[in-house]
Amino acid sequence: MKEKIQIKKKVLFENDRLAAEIRRRLHEKRIVSLNLVSSPGSGKTSLLERTLGALNNELNMALIAGDVQTKNDAIRLTRAGGKIVRPVITGGACHLDARMVSKTLDELDLNDVDVLFIENVGNLVCPSSYDLGEDMKVVLVSTTEGDDKPLKYPAMFWRSSALIINKIDLLGLSDFELEKVKKNAKSINANLKIFEMSCRTGERLETWYNWLIQLVKDKKTL
Amino acid sequence: MKEKIQIKKKVLFENDRLAAEIRRRLHEKRIVSLNLVSSPGSGKTSLLERTLGALNNELNMALIAGDVQTKNDAIRLTRAGGKIVRPVITGGACHLDARMVSKTLDELDLNDVDVLFIENVGNLVCPSSYDLGEDMKVVLVSTTEGDDKPLKYPAMFWRSSALIINKIDLLGLSDFELEKVKKNAKSINANLKIFEMSCRTGERLETWYNWLIQLVKDKKTL
Repeated sequence: MKEKIQIKKKVLFENDRLAAEIRRRLHEKRIVSLNLVSSPGSGKTSLLERTLGALNNELNMALIAGDVQTKNDAIRLTRAGGKIVRPVITGGACHLDARMVSKTLDELDLNDVDVLFIENVGNLVCPSSYDLGEDMKVVLVSTTEGDDKPLKYPAMFWRSSALIINKIDLLGLSDFELEKVKKNAKSINANLKIFEMSCRTGERLETWYNWLIQLVKDKKTL
Repeated sequence: MKEKIQIKKKVLFENDRLAAEIRRRLHEKRIVSLNLVSSPGSGKTSLLERTLGALNNELNMALIAGDVQTKNDAIRLTRAGGKIVRPVITGGACHLDARMVSKTLDELDLNDVDVLFIENVGNLVCPSSYDLGEDMKVVLVSTTEGDDKPLKYPAMFWRSSALIINKIDLLGLSDFELEKVKKNAKSINANLKIFEMSCRTGERLETWYNWLIQLVKDKKTL
């Protein structure tokens, strides 16, 4: 057990070193980078499809789509208008790590990119431990998943800067209470910026778009 | 990397050894044991609540509720009438392992138990690697998660014996197609026994109940 913990520490240490390199690299080019994390099926890809649809002319977006298997997400993002899209198939691993991201960035032309979206593997546990060099993690939770998720998977909510509550079009069809999930999330991380939306209907995405645009502006003037 | 893989192999080897012990122990007492796996919020706890409500007089059920944090699920199961309920808080770990289950079984009176349900941590990736000594894994997927989940997380569907498609009351409110998810699941594992139901409304759970009762009967006559 002790041996296992030491190895895990070593792996995470190496990951952190690489993540710091990525962070420096993206910062030099003034690229906003967001690591999207959630359970499978919460709507990470749908959010990115919507965002491409709305902001593709305004922002130059690069997208890394992580998955255990298949390039389904990358295909969806390219169809939605993504110009710089790369799939990363982890081949069994339950999270992206900094090495995978770094390798993928090597293949991309990052000049003139405003925002890098990294869509992590659908998993509310493991991706919380792996820094990918992003500016911030954005965690999604959908109204069909239950409002106690922040309490049951606290690390992810604590390490994220923004929370997207997706599928608000399905509110009222389950016992999910919007106020409860917000209260639970804030009890883990009081600084969470919270968005409510439906990526399926397109409802209430404006605040998210404006926030993104502002992030890009702020980064350029750094 | 090689070092990491060797340690992982050692951990899994030790897990398999313990799992075999659990399997022998449960088999001696003719206990049917099911390891419930799914994304967070697919309805593992709701399924168990329904099952307790319907079969509590007929079957003696023991329940182990695994979670990263909180005893929420165990509390729900006790409220639903569970007589033998134990929470296992993994404290960060993304899956249950055989050691946790074995330790918990030590505390339980297993005489006269017909079925042991092990509710795993909500995670479609990692729990697939850890044998808990169960008779079979039962994987849940809900209609709000997307019908490509079997393709994106194949290991879990390949290692499961039954698939529960939950939240059929919400069919038609998303792009989820029932036939597609079944086809995708069967393409990974042709032998999957498939159930469709809504644990919220209670719709179509009879087949599941009858299947469970039959499993118990079959086990007793072994």
